[in-house]
Amino acid sequence: MPPMRGIKILSPQGAIAPTGTWSLGARAGDFIFVAGMRGIDPATNTILDTEEERIRRAFMNMKTIAESEDAGLSDCVRLTVFVTDMARLRPLVNKVQAELWGGGPFPPRTIVEVARLNQDDIFEVEGTFYAPQRP
Amino acid sequence: MPPMRGIKILSPQGAIAPTGTWSLGARAGDFIFVAGMRGIDPATNTILDTEEERIRRAFMNMKTIAESEDAGLSDCVRLTVFVTDMARLRPLVNKVQAELWGGGPFPPRTIVEVARLNQDDIFEVEGTFYAPQRP
Amino acid sequence: MPPMRGIKILSPQGAIAPTGTWSLGARAGDFIFVAGMRGIDPATNTILDTEEERIRRAFMNMKTIAESEDAGLSDCVRLTVFVTDMARLRPLVNKVQAELWGGGPFPPRTIVEVARLNQDDIFEVEGTFYAPQRP
Repeated sequence: MPPMRGIKILSPQGAIAPTGTWSLGARAGDFIFVAGMRGIDPATNTILDTEEERIRRAFMNMKTIAESEDAGLSDCVRLTVFVTDMARLRPLVNKVQAELWGGGPFPPRTIVEVARLNQDDIFEVEGTFYAPQRP
Repeated sequence: MPPMRGIKILSPQGAIAPTGTWSLGARAGDFIFVAGMRGIDPATNTILDTEEERIRRAFMNMKTIAESEDAGLSDCVRLTVFVTDMARLRPLVNKVQAELWGGGPFPPRTIVEVARLNQDDIFEVEGTFYAPQRP
Repeated sequence: MPPMRGIKILSPQGAIAPTGTWSLGARAGDFIFVAGMRGIDPATNTILDTEEERIRRAFMNMKTIAESEDAGLSDCVRLTVFVTDMARLRPLVNKVQAELWGGGPFPPRTIVEVARLNQDDIFEVEGTFYAPQRP
């Protein structure tokens, strides 16, 4: 591959290990694009047990990647959330986000129920962050 | 939450009211990210009756948010459309877009059929807009 | 529609022909947004035969559009992949990406199984690219 012009591929300490042909995230200009994150324990690279633990861990995995580029959850400008059961999981997502984002403000979010996720998982979140670079 | 650096959370007059841990939209730099919009009447916060009305209203709800940052439908650079019946709803989406965008040009679009949307709705659209800020 | 402020709609030679109310791609500032691409042969505008051919062709269709704005696959900062069978198709996606991106690095990717794609297709990919404009 030719060199990437101004794109920084992210692979921070404490993050999960990608298992295929994808990277955890990328910074391009003032934006940070994080790959779909699931509830995988970075210490063991295995899926956590309960649904609530997986949802919290997925957000935390996303946070680890964003923080490596000096962005926090409050710098998130888009969340796209994929669940496999809207009725059961959307309330859990709301609960975990209220915990992680405190009283808000919260990022714009799209949430849809899909047919299946990798490893028959139940939750995946794709996040976009804004962290202007100093001139 | 720490202060957001240069992100403006959008909550304009005339828009629907978020019902959970999410915001309607955010401006970050020259881009505007709008949350997934559905066919909810902002006057009553209830879902409209017919499929075509819902699709049109969802686009209009998106437009309201974009316009609060001085962007119109012609400033849209990405649409991701989620429907629950591709065969029946995609032609309606095309019809409504032809009406709202006039003769075009139209933004790049991705359209997929998902298993379910919130409130068992039938259409949701996520839009990204470009509206450069004056220096 | 009013004129688009600084948005360039992309319609390069060699790309497929849009069949509805959408464009192939758009440049806005330093970013290029490509519509969901499928395995359609631009020479005939028909879907290719095998699953692997369709996946490869979808990526190549995306590449054609990105290249018209001087971006290559290595300038991709986000891939969102929609398949209709995670177990069977994800390994094929990995295989094709390994071939097209060589040894990497690979862009951040989100992959989900949806209920249906247009024309009952099996793979669709939405790509975002970063190609800074010279001042």
